Amino acid sequence: MSAPTESRPLNIVVWNENVHESRGDATVLGHYPDGMHTVIAAALREQHPGASVSTATLQEPEHGLTAERLATTDVLFWWGHVAHQDVSDEVVTRVVEAVHAGMGLVVLHSGHYSKPFTRLMGTTCSLKWRNDGERELVWTIAPEHPIAAGVPHPIVIDRQEMYGEYFDIPRPDEEVFLSTFAGGEVFRSGVAYRRGLGRVFYFSPGDQEYPVYHHADVQRVLANAAAWAAPTSERRQLTADPHPRDWFLSGGSGTQEA
Amino acid sequence: MSAPTESRPLNIVVWNENVHESRGDATVLGHYPDGMHTVIAAALREQHPGASVSTATLQEPEHGLTAERLATTDVLFWWGHVAHQDVSDEVVTRVVEAVHAGMGLVVLHSGHYSKPFTRLMGTTCSLKWRNDGERELVWTIAPEHPIAAGVPHPIVIDRQEMYGEYFDIPRPDEEVFLSTFAGGEVFRSGVAYRRGLGRVFYFSPGDQEYPVYHHADVQRVLANAAAWAAPTSERRQLTADPHPRDWFLSGGSGTQEA
Amino acid sequence: MSAPTESRPLNIVVWNENVHESRGDATVLGHYPDGMHTVIAAALREQHPGASVSTATLQEPEHGLTAERLATTDVLFWWGHVAHQDVSDEVVTRVVEAVHAGMGLVVLHSGHYSKPFTRLMGTTCSLKWRNDGERELVWTIAPEHPIAAGVPHPIVIDRQEMYGEYFDIPRPDEEVFLSTFAGGEVFRSGVAYRRGLGRVFYFSPGDQEYPVYHHADVQRVLANAAAWAAPTSERRQLTADPHPRDWFLSGGSGTQEA
Amino acid sequence: MSAPTESRPLNIVVWNENVHESRGDATVLGHYPDGMHTVIAAALREQHPGASVSTATLQEPEHGLTAERLATTDVLFWWGHVAHQDVSDEVVTRVVEAVHAGMGLVVLHSGHYSKPFTRLMGTTCSLKWRNDGERELVWTIAPEHPIAAGVPHPIVIDRQEMYGEYFDIPRPDEEVFLSTFAGGEVFRSGVAYRRGLGRVFYFSPGDQEYPVYHHADVQRVLANAAAWAAPTSERRQLTADPHPRDWFLSGGSGTQEA
Repeated sequence: MSAPTESRPLNIVVWNENVHESRGDATVLGHYPDGMHTVIAAALREQHPGASVSTATLQEPEHGLTAERLATTDVLFWWGHVAHQDVSDEVVTRVVEAVHAGMGLVVLHSGHYSKPFTRLMGTTCSLKWRNDGERELVWTIAPEHPIAAGVPHPIVIDRQEMYGEYFDIPRPDEEVFLSTFAGGEVFRSGVAYRRGLGRVFYFSPGDQEYPVYHHADVQRVLANAAAWAAPTSERRQLTADPHPRDWFLSGGSGTQEA
Repeated sequence: MSAPTESRPLNIVVWNENVHESRGDATVLGHYPDGMHTVIAAALREQHPGASVSTATLQEPEHGLTAERLATTDVLFWWGHVAHQDVSDEVVTRVVEAVHAGMGLVVLHSGHYSKPFTRLMGTTCSLKWRNDGERELVWTIAPEHPIAAGVPHPIVIDRQEMYGEYFDIPRPDEEVFLSTFAGGEVFRSGVAYRRGLGRVFYFSPGDQEYPVYHHADVQRVLANAAAWAAPTSERRQLTADPHPRDWFLSGGSGTQEA
Repeated sequence: MSAPTESRPLNIVVWNENVHESRGDATVLGHYPDGMHTVIAAALREQHPGASVSTATLQEPEHGLTAERLATTDVLFWWGHVAHQDVSDEVVTRVVEAVHAGMGLVVLHSGHYSKPFTRLMGTTCSLKWRNDGERELVWTIAPEHPIAAGVPHPIVIDRQEMYGEYFDIPRPDEEVFLSTFAGGEVFRSGVAYRRGLGRVFYFSPGDQEYPVYHHADVQRVLANAAAWAAPTSERRQLTADPHPRDWFLSGGSGTQEA
Repeated sequence: MSAPTESRPLNIVVWNENVHESRGDATVLGHYPDGMHTVIAAALREQHPGASVSTATLQEPEHGLTAERLATTDVLFWWGHVAHQDVSDEVVTRVVEAVHAGMGLVVLHSGHYSKPFTRLMGTTCSLKWRNDGERELVWTIAPEHPIAAGVPHPIVIDRQEMYGEYFDIPRPDEEVFLSTFAGGEVFRSGVAYRRGLGRVFYFSPGDQEYPVYHHADVQRVLANAAAWAAPTSERRQLTADPHPRDWFLSGGSGTQEA
């Protein structure tokens, strides 16, 4: 029952659709010359020096998410925006099943509409939005939550896209952050879920047009989220099996799994 | 903002895969000569005399769930077991989208593994089971919940299939019932969710081999669930739309929708 | 199991400490010449024409909340601010026990620090605040919740005291409203709880220095909250009693209570 | 923001009313010659070798819970049954305020009716019971929860007092265990809450008449609960303070606390 990462490094993969970057959007490349994923990965490496952090993109074979690679991924970060429909259903199923079996998933910003997130939520994940470069304040409403550790109250992000309620998500298992915007809107910007044996965290700050992933406090949240989402036991499939009467009496203490 | 059913009858559709019955399973036909759906529908009619209650089955064109019919369905009951994979994805998407837009859904027993339920939950919905005809007790843990109104504590079901934890569902928004079985297992047997603008209730008692849907208390739960799941406003799509600054100042009181 | 108010009018009592008014605070009396409670009560009367709505204040014997009166109160509204400590513990215990037995309680604004509310929450109920007459926007995050029915998204309150997070309350059973303020803060401004057999709703808009209780949308929320908090069964005490084996087999269907 | 126990041992205090033992109940002394607290403390010492584990009882001055001692207690265990009313309100307030400021609290069995627990819950905490020495099965419904780590599914306790629903507690923040009893009842036997900055865990197995605290799996749960409830930041009071406009802009990153 020991954590899988006790005897090896924490294995983090940062996935980015990498389309804004690939097609040469000047604003995006200004902030992220090598892609958002590289900045996010560098931040995670700095804060988790013992971890193995790598990246994957839509353009790679199987989007860089082969079954073999996912099998040893502890936490997957997901950034997508304009190419959600280009992600193959086979890879999405693979990601969803990995979460069910214990993999952590951290979904970023416009990933709210991604296939893996909407399939894990079961809702439309729709929201209100406005790209007006306005100030976002990220308030902590779970002060002792590990994802909020070391994070100021509020985080001040000078320029950001606005995401506003109603955000059509299931009731979160844990609400960590609420954001307000200069225009007056509010958004549940940091929400946590269990899905099967895996943990899912959605964090909304991070539009491609603003340097949000360079923000030290945002990086701290991402690093905290990676630690929080990491599995605590070996990955396993949940199945529906018949159980004869008194099946639980046959084993010794500690032998059955939930 | 008035409830859609204020000016017309509550419209309930009971869907059944109807496969055990169609292929002539003697035990099932013994309890339900015209199919489980007819017994459930009759019970709902009796308890909601003003409602319009009809049935639909897998074998009908589009499984009896055309877009036109679903558009005016307030609450859909769903019973499936051996033919989940035979339900067309197109119809499933239609059902899921109707829930997102406000339709109520009541999922019964082995429907835990149905396509609409697993898509709305985002988990595997796996569980433990044993068909040994043992006593199930259904305990209320939300005494004032409308779905538990008029229901004894516990409901005693003399013979039932056992469903046991771990039941791989998201944390319920509301837990109404917990069941215990003679063999010692426990199951979260009555759980409620919001998905989009619609309500979803899962209720596990009801195997095809036992006359559970003839049980007066079970019928009461189903009738309560229909009332609880009925939409309270007109169906509408949730979408992600841009909103200019101060969009909310233009309208008068009561004009914006969440 | 029928609702207690089916055969008689819904009985609402609006309690106000009535201290700002009694001591002649000019601003408060400007908005509420006869006290905030009279304005709230008038609004409830208008929206629930069939209900019996009365008021009670700190200055009355037993603060107007005798055992006899509370025994038939369906929903109690509570407004307090500077005199929380002047409310007798005996009356507070009476209120708390009435909630446990099924009475609804709607706590307003600075009532977050009242004895009944803090005793029902079990937390400090502390928060951040600033009285700067700034705009509050009240956003709905539970679009189909009955307390939000007919309410615009957002409610716009031109001038209000700011209440901000961290608001030290238990995780709400239901979150209905989130407020933002011109200064950038956020607040969980409409939160719902079950405590025993009773329902509790806290709604923060409503400082004594601003005419918030004259606001049509705020009045609508209060009326909705009264309907939501009203008990659905006869009041009863929850106790710890011994139960012999098979106690539940002796009665007929529907005879046991949770 | 580092955990307070990083630079010193985890400090656990096991409190027992110690009345059954003091008055010489033969059955209790048969299982626990030196009191239940000594067996619990020994188990915690064994599983947390680096921790400082001590005991306190009702009979000591200030019940062994002086302000000074509580100030450095990370996790307090609480066992009470027949002497809840003999615990001084002053000490209870001290315990509750310590929880609000970050101390962990683990409440055991008949402690459901203790003053600290009922004050933190805000409900009656009533339940059904029967002392018939029947088998209890403790099922995990949160398989990856740290309190369930290494625990079999189910834990089998051969003889126990029955505690049954309806258990009048607020909706738990996390449900970890459900128990069933040979007589058919069910109980939410492992439930977790946040109250202020502190964590509270209630675990029902453990009647004085049965050797439950000698059970290896129960001991594992208690040890897990101690680790889970331990504070992650320095203790601090939550207060309601005025905040001028833009107060959050003055500090540098990481300087404000929620």
